[in-house]
Order: sequence, then C-alpha cells, then structure tokens
Amino acid sequence: MKQIPFYNTRIEGCFWGDKQRVSREVTVDAVYDRFKETKRFEAMKCDKEQYEREGWRPHIFWDSDAAKWIEGAAYTLEYEKNKRFEDKIDELVDLMCNSQLESGYYNAYFNVYDTENKFTTRDCHELYCLGHLIEAAVAYYHATGKDKLLGLVERYVDYVIKVFVEEKTAKFMTPGHEEIELALVKLYRLTGKQKYLDLSKFFIDNRGNNELDIAGLRDWMTNRYAQDHLPVREQTTAEGHSVRAMYLYMAMADLALECGDESLFKACDTILHNVAEKRMYITGGIGSSCIGEAFTVDYDLKNEPAYTETCATLALSLFCQRMSKIKPIGLYGDIAEQAMYNGSISGVSIKGDEFFYENPLTIDLADHDKNPATKQKERYPITQRVKIFGCSCCPPNILRYINSIGDFLYTEDEDTLYVHHYINSSTEFEGKKIRQNTYYPSCGKVKLTVKGDYKKIAVRVPGWCEKFDASASYIIKDGYAYFDAAEVIDLDFNMAPRFVVSAPGVHENAGKTALMLGPVVYCVEKVDNDCDIFGLSVNTDTVFDVQPDNYFSLPTITVDGYAKVHNGQLYSNVNAVKYEARKIKFIPYYGMENRGETDMLVWIPIK
Amino acid sequence: MKQIPFYNTRIEGCFWGDKQRVSREVTVDAVYDRFKETKRFEAMKCDKEQYEREGWRPHIFWDSDAAKWIEGAAYTLEYEKNKRFEDKIDELVDLMCNSQLESGYYNAYFNVYDTENKFTTRDCHELYCLGHLIEAAVAYYHATGKDKLLGLVERYVDYVIKVFVEEKTAKFMTPGHEEIELALVKLYRLTGKQKYLDLSKFFIDNRGNNELDIAGLRDWMTNRYAQDHLPVREQTTAEGHSVRAMYLYMAMADLALECGDESLFKACDTILHNVAEKRMYITGGIGSSCIGEAFTVDYDLKNEPAYTETCATLALSLFCQRMSKIKPIGLYGDIAEQAMYNGSISGVSIKGDEFFYENPLTIDLADHDKNPATKQKERYPITQRVKIFGCSCCPPNILRYINSIGDFLYTEDEDTLYVHHYINSSTEFEGKKIRQNTYYPSCGKVKLTVKGDYKKIAVRVPGWCEKFDASASYIIKDGYAYFDAAEVIDLDFNMAPRFVVSAPGVHENAGKTALMLGPVVYCVEKVDNDCDIFGLSVNTDTVFDVQPDNYFSLPTITVDGYAKVHNGQLYSNVNAVKYEARKIKFIPYYGMENRGETDMLVWIPIK
Repeated sequence: MKQIPFYNTRIEGCFWGDKQRVSREVTVDAVYDRFKETKRFEAMKCDKEQYEREGWRPHIFWDSDAAKWIEGAAYTLEYEKNKRFEDKIDELVDLMCNSQLESGYYNAYFNVYDTENKFTTRDCHELYCLGHLIEAAVAYYHATGKDKLLGLVERYVDYVIKVFVEEKTAKFMTPGHEEIELALVKLYRLTGKQKYLDLSKFFIDNRGNNELDIAGLRDWMTNRYAQDHLPVREQTTAEGHSVRAMYLYMAMADLALECGDESLFKACDTILHNVAEKRMYITGGIGSSCIGEAFTVDYDLKNEPAYTETCATLALSLFCQRMSKIKPIGLYGDIAEQAMYNGSISGVSIKGDEFFYENPLTIDLADHDKNPATKQKERYPITQRVKIFGCSCCPPNILRYINSIGDFLYTEDEDTLYVHHYINSSTEFEGKKIRQNTYYPSCGKVKLTVKGDYKKIAVRVPGWCEKFDASASYIIKDGYAYFDAAEVIDLDFNMAPRFVVSAPGVHENAGKTALMLGPVVYCVEKVDNDCDIFGLSVNTDTVFDVQPDNYFSLPTITVDGYAKVHNGQLYSNVNAVKYEARKIKFIPYYGMENRGETDMLVWIPIK
Repeated sequence: MKQIPFYNTRIEGCFWGDKQRVSREVTVDAVYDRFKETKRFEAMKCDKEQYEREGWRPHIFWDSDAAKWIEGAAYTLEYEKNKRFEDKIDELVDLMCNSQLESGYYNAYFNVYDTENKFTTRDCHELYCLGHLIEAAVAYYHATGKDKLLGLVERYVDYVIKVFVEEKTAKFMTPGHEEIELALVKLYRLTGKQKYLDLSKFFIDNRGNNELDIAGLRDWMTNRYAQDHLPVREQTTAEGHSVRAMYLYMAMADLALECGDESLFKACDTILHNVAEKRMYITGGIGSSCIGEAFTVDYDLKNEPAYTETCATLALSLFCQRMSKIKPIGLYGDIAEQAMYNGSISGVSIKGDEFFYENPLTIDLADHDKNPATKQKERYPITQRVKIFGCSCCPPNILRYINSIGDFLYTEDEDTLYVHHYINSSTEFEGKKIRQNTYYPSCGKVKLTVKGDYKKIAVRVPGWCEKFDASASYIIKDGYAYFDAAEVIDLDFNMAPRFVVSAPGVHENAGKTALMLGPVVYCVEKVDNDCDIFGLSVNTDTVFDVQPDNYFSLPTITVDGYAKVHNGQLYSNVNAVKYEARKIKFIPYYGMENRGETDMLVWIPIK
C-alpha cells in the first residue's frame, strides 16, 4: 500500500482549513518568536563565549525545538510560498551547518558543553534531536528543493552508523527517547539509501536486549519507562513514557511496512488494541500519569490529574495512520480520528498562539489552591494555555501536525483507493483526482468524487456510526465499505449527538456519560453554564439542540439536565434532595479553556 | 450543666460493651507491647548513656504515647481492677518522676538532647506532651488514688507558669500543637486550683496574637496550619492540622463552660457548623489532605486520598460532647455520633490489635501500584491496619476513647436530665439511677429508666431519625424531646436503612449515594461481592435485607443493584451497554479491611 502524501491535497475551508489558516497566519510566528526570545535559535550557533558572557546555556533538546519549527513551517510552504519563513529557516540551517563538527556530529549542547560525553548517556536526547533534524531536512527539501540541512543530517547519520554500528564505541545501544527510528525511515524513503533503513532496524531490534544500558537513565526510571523491558516483538502493552512509546510504535509500523515484517505489525496491532481498549481517554489522550509522563495500568484513566500530553495524543494518531497504511482496519482510523479531533488540537488555543502540554478531562478550580494551611501544594495540570513551556515540545509538534493533516486521508494499492478520513479537500496524485465535499465532522454527509483508474473504493465507516447510507451498494470488511469504483459516491454517516459510557473498569466514570458528535468529544464549561457544573446531571433521553458556532468551528449542543439543589445539609436522605430541570450547554472539548479560566468537565452523571 | 462522668456508667454488652471488652483484653496489652518494643517506655528513663550505647534516641513526642497509654489503661481500672496494668503504670511513673528535673521540667527528649533548647521551638510538642501527662495523671489518680504522676505534672505546670507567664522567657507564647489547654481544665476540675484554668486561658487568649512565633515552625507551615491566623474568637472555619484544631476547639468549649464565656462558645458553634456543613466526610472523618494532615477548603472531600486521621475524628466527637455540655443542641450529638460509629472506630481492627491512622472512603487496590514505569509512586493511605506507626498517636487515643465512651451519655442541670446518646448501660450518680435497655444502633428502640429527682428528661432525637415515637408526650426543642420526668420512657427512633446523598458541592460524590443505618455508615467490600465493585450501582428503591452479624456486632445489609457488563469496548454508546441485576452486600464502614486487603467503597452510583 502506498500513501498519498499530504502535499497532494489541498484542505479547503471548514474545520481543518480553518485550523491550517490559523496555524500559518499565527502559530508559525508565535512559536518562532517565543523560541527566539528564549535563545533556542541562538543556541544553534554553539558560541560558548557568548553564552558565558550572557549567562545562559542551551538545553540538550533545544535542537529538536528548532527542527520541529522548521518542519512545521516547511509544511506550510507546500501550499503557499513564504519568503519570510524561508529566510528564517535558511538562517537557522546556516547556523547549524556552520557548527557541525568535522566528524559529522551536531548537537547545540554537546558541541559546547560536556564535549567528552557525546553518546555516553542514553537519556540525553542526542539521537532524538537528530531524528527531528532529519524530519525537518526531509520536509524542507521537499518543500523547497534546498538540501543544505539534508546534507548536515546525512553526514551526521553516517557518523552515527560509524559510532553505533561499526565501531560500537557509543556507551549505549538504542536511544533513550525514540524518534530517530521513524525519521530514518523518512530519510530512506527520500534518498532510497538502504543504510538508513538498516540503522533504524538496528535500533529497533536492539531495544529490549540491552539491559545494562539503563544505567545511563535517571534512577527513578525503569526499563519499562524506556520501552526496553522486552524485545519489541514481544511487547503487548503500551508502556512507559507515552510520547517515547508512540514514537517507537510509529517506527515499528514504518519498518513493518517497508520490510514486510509481519511480527512487527502483529506487535503494533496488539499494543494498539491495548491502548484502544484499556489505556486511552475518550479524548484520545494517553499517558495518565505525570510521574514519568507515562502509561500506568489498564483502566487507570482519572480525569482531573490526566497528564495526556499533547505530543502523545498527536503521536497516537500518527501511529494509527501508519497502521492504516499497512492494513485497512477500521479501528486504526477510528482511534486516529478520536485523537485528531480532541486531545491533540486541545493543545492549541483557538487563536493559535497559546498551548497546553497537559490536557485534563476535568478542571475543578476549587481543587487548585485548596491547601491554605501549608505552603506545599498538590499537583494539577495548568488551567490556561501559555505561550511557551520550559520543555516546549508540544507547540511545534501541533504546528507540523496540523499542516500535514492531509497525510491521514488516502492510501492506495494496485486497484483500490482507501479513504480513511473525511475532510473537505481536493487531491491530485499521479494524474488522479479525488475530491471530498463535506462539512464533516459538523455533518456526516460526504460527496466523494474520484477520477482515476481504481477498481474499488474503500471508505472507512467510523466505529461510532450507527447507521451508514451510501448512494451505491457496498460490502463491509474490517470497518471499511468497499464500493465498485464510481466517479461520485455519496456517503452519509448520519451524524447525531450521542451519549457514551466507559467500560466498568474505568472506576471514576461509573454512573457518568460523555457527549460526542461523531468523533468529537464535548465538554461542559462553567462559562456557559452559570452554576456549579459538578452538581449537574444529564437526561440521556434528551432532545439535542445543535447550534452552529463560528468560534469553535463546530456546533455547540444543549441538552436537558438537572441541577442538584443545595438544601444546606452536607448529607441528606436521598428522597429529601430536590433537582431542578435545567439546560446544559456543551462545547467541543478541544475548545476548552479558551474564554478565561473556568471549571470544565467531560464526564457528567446520568440521572 | 454538669456531666455525669463515664465512670458512673457501666456499659453492658452489645456494641460498646464488646468494644470495651476487646479494648481491655487485647488493646491495652497490644499497645503496651508495641510501645515497649520500640523503646517508647525505656525512653522515659532519660538515660543518654544507654541510648548512645544502643544507638537510638527518644522522639520529642514519645512522652505523649506513654501518657495516652497510661490514661487509656487507667480508664479500664474504673471498671475492673487489674494489678498487672497498675504495676506497669507505676513502673512508668517511677521512671518519669526519677527523671524530672529540679526545675519541674520533664520531657524524655529535651531532658537528654538539645537541653539548651527547651521551650524555644513552638512545634516541638513539649506542652503537648505535658498536656497528655496531665490527662494521664488525672485519670490514674481518679482510678487508683495514686498521686505520684499528679505531683510530677503539678510541679511541671508550676514551672510552665513561671517560664511562660511570670518570667516570659519562653521563645513562644502558645503551643504549636494544642492539647495542654484542655488538659489544664481537667487539672483545674480535679484540684480546684484557679492557676491551671488561668494558664489554659492564657494560651487560648494569646493564640492568633503572636504572629512572630510562627518562625519556630517548619517553613511549609502557615499561621493557619497552627490555628494562629486569627484570635480564636474571630475564627469561623476549621483550619490547619485537624487534630491540633480539634484539641483547640475542645479547650475553647471547656473554657466557655467554665468561664461562662459566650464569645468562645459562639466561635466554637460557628466552627462546628463549618465542619458539619462543609468539611466533614460522612464518616465523621475530618482533615482531607495528607499535606499538613489538614483541613483544606469547603466541600473538598475526596474519597480515595482521604486522610481523616483517626485522632481527628475521635477529637471531633469529643469536641461535640463538650458542646453538648454547654447547650443541648441536637447537631452536637448528631455529629458526635457520626464520628463515634464510623471514622473513629474504623481506626482499630475488630480484633483490637491493629490500627489505621488514615481512614479513606475508597480503597481501589489497582491504584496503589500503578506506575510500573518509574520508581516514583503516588501516595495513598495504607490498605491494611498495622500494629504500630512511627507516629503512633492513634492507637492509645482509641484506647482512651473507647474506655471513656460513657462520657457521651448524660448531662444534667438543676431539674433536667439530658440523654445525648444511646448505649445499653446502667448509671449511678449522686444517688440517682439511670438505665438504658437498647440494641442501639442495631435497633432504634430504647427503654429509658430513670430514678432520680429530675423534673424533665430531654432526649436527643437524632437528626437522621425521620419518625420518632415515644411512650409519653414531649415537646421538641433544638433537636431534643423534652418529657416530664417519668420512671420509664420508651423511645423508638424507627431505625431503618436509608440512602444518603452529598451536597452538590462535594463533586466526587455527584450521582452517588451512601447507605446508612442510623448513625452507621456502610461500605461495600470486594470480599463480600465477587466482582469489580466499582462497576456496581444501586437501586435506591430496593428492599433492604438486614442480617444480624456477630463479627461486626452490627447487621450487614444487602440491597438490589446492578453490575455494568463489560462488552469489550472502552467506550460505548449509552444504549449499547447492558447491566445485570445483582445483590450488593454492605458491611459497617468501621469494619472495613478486617478480612484481608480488599477493594472498598462508601459512595456508589445510583441507577
């Protein structure tokens, strides 16, 4: 199967068109400006004298921030030339290339400090940074034909091959933070050079076989934290740091495809089932715990402390996208979609210039400063997006994600076009033309127009869809409807709001429900409901009042519910408590906390 | 109003008779043996050479452990002579008296170490320890007539008066951990010496007026932690360390009574309303947070991390008992009772030899080891009682509490006998005889027999009681039924199981209910319900199957409920989920975690 890359597709208006416009017009500069202010770009100079004079030091993973910004900005250039962006990228690339060492090595920290400790400490993110530089180089080369950064990374990868594979002088076998593995597959695909694929395979195959390496990690980490507890083909559950885990699984899926490695695909599928069935918030959020930013145990999905890093959710959908490329199984697209419309884009403000790293499912402000008796505080996720973080991986990650969202749409094999997702857009690819006319996910209708020599067209019928209509007959297999090729097919997923409940294992959600519209999770904010929203409950037999909303780009939904009336007693006999009927307004979850700091909930009691 | 002290009452069998028997036969020795093993008693020798030789040091508050054990053991002697207990107490008293300094000072730590730092650090518990020594001395003197320990404490208190009041050479004005204030009132009541009452008043009146003193406390504490944020008469909410807070309020109530101080009573009443209406778990547990063992904010009553120290709950009921002595208001007895039957006695095992310091309302074992990826763990209360703690204040506190439970029953004024609580018992006091024949709280019937010259008999009608019957006519005032005196009055509080819900402000309990029988809170344990108990919900219109149970001394209750059936999906449309009918067995909350480590919940969803 072959992917139709995003740059063949023009997203047109509606939900994602809007997100891409904001991303181009606001986010590219917002991330750039904050990174510049915080010396992240200046650090690429590797000018120790300047740092000492000014009293600062680069961080070991600032290269990745710069690289991800380059990659995201490069993606926008596929649609729209922008000299200003290109000049900024060129300037950065020059700084990097000027500082690359003779050996090929380049890292803004280790070029300058701890220079004798290159490749000695597994958790120092050197290979992670290189991975992001590779992705940036590939993206920028494709968008502009400029190959200077590509040259840097190819020289650097050659050095890595020498140190890790040939001379084996590095102090560890596989990186602490995965990323280079998937980047090397991209580099291989661009250049066709087998050595890059081999290096990726080297890192993947060594993982779980090198217990001694763990010594280089911090003492509170375990092998499981680094997805290093078992050889990757024997892993069955999503474990450890959730972003690292997803980057690993993405690379495993890439290699499964490139090498036809059935055992890698099987491992990916098993792990993805574990995530989808036991370890994922309804928002697609993953990694429940702030301790190690990590997966914990099955069904541990607490709402208020939910860590669910933006990067992890983005990466989950990208992992699923890769799985869809190998085998068109509906679950992959379903999970990708759940992450795509909820816990990933909640990471950026509607305006496009402020970010969440964590994406909790409950914000109860009263809990946030509840220990007046001591100066110690409990830890909760922040409640308002900020312009930059100390560890600011998420903002540029959202940038590259939104601007390459078209990657999710299509794959093809010899005779079939696979339509995995629904976005109003037109695509031209190798002489073929594909169009989707749709307001998805505001509405479930999609007009699909395909001009090409396919024999079959397979469209994913989302798992949430209870009634599917189409203008032609079809056969369902693995969650896809297979049509004989036709120029126009009308699809209707009959999208309507619905209440969803959790598996009994998710203890905190017992007796509660969440509102969804297609793949979009909704939430209740106090700013729309002038009361203690945690005293509300819903009538699941409600009529839904669905109202278009320009601010959120998706409708708001108002339902019938109840507010428990406070009778002054802390505890009352169940029959002595009154409830008053009241309308409850829901907004799309990704739009939470955009209108000032306010209480928010996703899971609400059923009455 | 005058209290009829516990030693005038013989508790006979049933619930509290049984608890007292276990306490005498098991707990006295169990606490003694663990304290002896851990050198707590040996420390009273103040033999530095021995400590250095053996490599240990006394803790600054070990005196209080010894004193509370003496007090608890002394209470048992009121009912039953026990030479073995007396010998042990005498031996301890000798050790203490031999080590008392010339000045009168005595503390097992500061006698030996940091000797120049006596009364310099407000949080070092010296006056707290003295308070407990006073209570022990008063108790032992009353039970046996032996006055050696009484001599020690009177000499020590004289020294405290000299240092704090006369010479003002102490480095702080009021203690960091309250206790001595209430103990001095006991000493005043025994000896009639005004100076003790004056010293108590001195400490109480200075609290909140000496901001600079806080410097001696640890840097994460605030004035609020030490109930020192305002003069006591201006305080309106329960604040800070919950045990310290309750000991303060107890003393304030004592002084309000002794000095007829209306402003102190008013402050106590306001604070108690804050607790009862906004800051108390249904178990009577108080102090939600492990951070500072402290009160937090209104309605912050999370179940799983609930700190609710046993000592705090005991003390809440003792505070209420003191309030009932000043004014017969039903709420005081109601809250006392709620604490008495739930979060206080849950602190000791049914067998009497193992203890809980924290008393959570949810135990979800899956949460307790959920971070396999890192060696850092989240903090949860322990799930099985232990024989002793590092800070082992709770075990001897339960000992003295259970053996003086009769203190809760009666007060009298010139012409009225006030019956605050219901326990099967007989009382003789100044020629009067009072008997209660009752299975309370298994059953709501009480036959009250009173031989005495009262004009009125006032009985508290518990707040939970929805239908009250009596054999004579009565007038209700402030939650008490006032009868014309009669030799026999039959009362029936018509006890039946009932479901209770929280105020809307308690967010975690939204949509949930708790089962109660009279004042007794019930819980569900997995050991009785072979399933994931967090997937259960109850039908509040159930028939209750109430079964007597010898092990818990109170009935178990089985109700109709439902188990959510797992369909394999993590999230499902609300209408696609099935529930199967199932019986749910509840046991009294205080009996939780006595039959091995098991999941437990108090609040259960309503379906």
